[in-house]
Amino acid sequence: MELQWIKIFLPEIKELIETKDFKGLRDFLRERHPADILDILRELEPTERVMGFRLLDKNKISEVFSLLEPVEQEDLLKQFSEQHAKEILIEMQPDDRTQLFDELPAHVVEKLLKLLPPLERKEANELLNYPDNSAGRIMTPEYVGLRMDMTVAKALEHIRKTGLNRETIYVCYIVDETQKLRGVASLKNIILADPEQFIKDIMNENVFFVHTTDDQEKAVRVVQKYDILAVPVVDNEDRLVGIVTVDDVLDVVQEEVTEDFQRMAGIQTIEEEYFRVGFSKRILNRVTWLVILVVAATISQTILKRYAGVLGSMLALTYFIPMLTGSGGNTGSQSSTLVIRALATGEIKLKDWWRILLRESKVGVSLGFIMGLIAFTIAYISLGQCALAMTVGVSLWTVVSVGNVIGLAIPLFFRFVKLDPAFVSAPLIATLLDATGLVIYFEIARRVLTLTVPT
Amino acid sequence: MELQWIKIFLPEIKELIETKDFKGLRDFLRERHPADILDILRELEPTERVMGFRLLDKNKISEVFSLLEPVEQEDLLKQFSEQHAKEILIEMQPDDRTQLFDELPAHVVEKLLKLLPPLERKEANELLNYPDNSAGRIMTPEYVGLRMDMTVAKALEHIRKTGLNRETIYVCYIVDETQKLRGVASLKNIILADPEQFIKDIMNENVFFVHTTDDQEKAVRVVQKYDILAVPVVDNEDRLVGIVTVDDVLDVVQEEVTEDFQRMAGIQTIEEEYFRVGFSKRILNRVTWLVILVVAATISQTILKRYAGVLGSMLALTYFIPMLTGSGGNTGSQSSTLVIRALATGEIKLKDWWRILLRESKVGVSLGFIMGLIAFTIAYISLGQCALAMTVGVSLWTVVSVGNVIGLAIPLFFRFVKLDPAFVSAPLIATLLDATGLVIYFEIARRVLTLTVPT
Repeated sequence: MELQWIKIFLPEIKELIETKDFKGLRDFLRERHPADILDILRELEPTERVMGFRLLDKNKISEVFSLLEPVEQEDLLKQFSEQHAKEILIEMQPDDRTQLFDELPAHVVEKLLKLLPPLERKEANELLNYPDNSAGRIMTPEYVGLRMDMTVAKALEHIRKTGLNRETIYVCYIVDETQKLRGVASLKNIILADPEQFIKDIMNENVFFVHTTDDQEKAVRVVQKYDILAVPVVDNEDRLVGIVTVDDVLDVVQEEVTEDFQRMAGIQTIEEEYFRVGFSKRILNRVTWLVILVVAATISQTILKRYAGVLGSMLALTYFIPMLTGSGGNTGSQSSTLVIRALATGEIKLKDWWRILLRESKVGVSLGFIMGLIAFTIAYISLGQCALAMTVGVSLWTVVSVGNVIGLAIPLFFRFVKLDPAFVSAPLIATLLDATGLVIYFEIARRVLTLTVPT
Repeated sequence: MELQWIKIFLPEIKELIETKDFKGLRDFLRERHPADILDILRELEPTERVMGFRLLDKNKISEVFSLLEPVEQEDLLKQFSEQHAKEILIEMQPDDRTQLFDELPAHVVEKLLKLLPPLERKEANELLNYPDNSAGRIMTPEYVGLRMDMTVAKALEHIRKTGLNRETIYVCYIVDETQKLRGVASLKNIILADPEQFIKDIMNENVFFVHTTDDQEKAVRVVQKYDILAVPVVDNEDRLVGIVTVDDVLDVVQEEVTEDFQRMAGIQTIEEEYFRVGFSKRILNRVTWLVILVVAATISQTILKRYAGVLGSMLALTYFIPMLTGSGGNTGSQSSTLVIRALATGEIKLKDWWRILLRESKVGVSLGFIMGLIAFTIAYISLGQCALAMTVGVSLWTVVSVGNVIGLAIPLFFRFVKLDPAFVSAPLIATLLDATGLVIYFEIARRVLTLTVPT
């Protein structure tokens, strides 16, 4: 089966709905993967959507429901009967449930928690009690636990009996009678071992774990580094309480990338989904940097004021200010992006700084030369003054060369003082280079145009 | 075991090396995870590194070697004897091998291919023959294949016999006698089934696959969408030839994010690792946008020239040009980043465009008001002219409001005409807003300062 075959089936589904062939629709949906059902439901009108949901098998409802965005989940819950909502909630995986509750308003969560049976309610409350963004908050208690004195055959039997509802059965954790984590065995190890062997002889004692209160990013680092399908989470007394699986890790990675993008645009991190962020919060997240940069632009203003003499004696110099400051900023944001991303993926290390500076300086000088030549040509054609065109060309060359180096030096410096290099936003670089570019421009102008500055 | 314990052990390792306790070092490394050995080796001096490598067990060498960056792999291969290189290459997973060959110069690949036994050489050649960035190029032929008429017990026996060298045993593929893909069964399905059942009765016939020549991103989409551990790859005649696993998917996702970051900074995509990109290529990747933007800045220049009269009669207007154009660009790059990222993660859809425009317009007008007030204050303090300060404040307010909307409208428009919104770079937005901002500024100036423009 190939991806995106949905479009082929959509007319068929629409017809089933129009002819009210609910049996046909039910049979059709039964065969489909939850992710595809989600696609289908999203293509339908709101009323058709609720109806489609009602036609799904019980276990499939909660699978499809878990795939929805929290906003969509909230909308749907409002339209379901209490009984229906209860059924879905009970069937959901504990970690998906925490994620849903995390996004809902407190009074809705309270109402929904009351729908859960005592055991699930206790579990949900425990998970919600871990700090925001902690490993405990994203883990699921649904792991396979084994004992050291089990034989492989006995362990397999245990997995067969309890495995159906576990988040994964491919990694099994070995705990002692006090629930302390003692080792790990992959299902591969177990399957390939002799049925008579003891689990303690095939398990790996060097098991990597995180604590419930550790940041979720630590769990991500462990899964990524050791290429494992899940990482166990232990409490303060080293007792195993849950696992974080690789699919949750993909979600966290996604979040982190969004964080980097936003920082680089000078936005404070917004964790909520786009449409859930309130008005005042959206202002607050963005205003800090914007105001800092307006104030920082006072430097450019002061510089321009200082060179008012030069400007006054040749107004045409003004025409090229946007071209000049813009080019510096553009080059700087290119080089800073290259360095920030390469630092994030680990392609370059701080200790390579000298090599990076050397490499990029050459690139910057060459780029500056090409751009300077073009700027010279443009200036000469438009104003016909060779000295002025020369000033513009040489200034652009210098500004681009300098801007390029500044753009890569600042993120390296941030890493050096242990700040996230992604805080070096394009706007910050651009504002810094506005000021630098203007000084370069007017100093070159003074010399090339042999103008005198009034003191 | 916790992450980053390496630092604790490093002094111990250094001592083992200094006292030339090779046996102790060998024992120490045997216990470690390949990812940790990699960390250790990277902390060592180059000569110590080669020595450390020689102390590893045969099977661990190729595991650690596969984790290295291609540049490091190339460096090491030069220092190994032919026999040593051969041993490592043979032990490597086929997909890791393709990745290494992909990065090496053709003549080195040819030499290394000759070291491989005929079977592995044929396989490596076949994989290298698939197009760049295709699913065939990143797949591994090391999957578990089952037959429909096998019983579950028989299938488990087959998995036990052949599973050791397979990339994954957690997903098994069912093929017929012509090697055509007929279904999929997870090890979970198999383990939880009755041993007497037939594979054809427990397999899922709705198996999602990609073709060898499909783009690797398609394989990624399938794995992400259906939350599966691997996707099968078939040839033109629907015969199963390999699989792409979830760890390869994480790598591709990483690459794609880098692509987005670079596009948003106006850099053409660089696929190679940072230090492998040659000088001329680094120039070419960056110069296109930079030159386009220099030429585009001619618009700003033309505008300034047109308003020379206004400027000449009040030179102080010049002082605030960088503040004004900068603020417009900064706001625009914030809003474009928010929209581009939300489109990439699917949080917002094109059909929501009206809702987004409405929401963000309010935010932009409010941000502009705050910033305009600050700009007014700064201008009034520094020059003491109320009318001028008013011009600056009102212009900034307008420019920010407009810039904010333009910043989010352009990526939405790109998506509408089916271009990647990530092509909307911060530099592009900034350059567009320079011109827009200047027109707004001078038109407001003309009115507020009641100056006349010479025609």
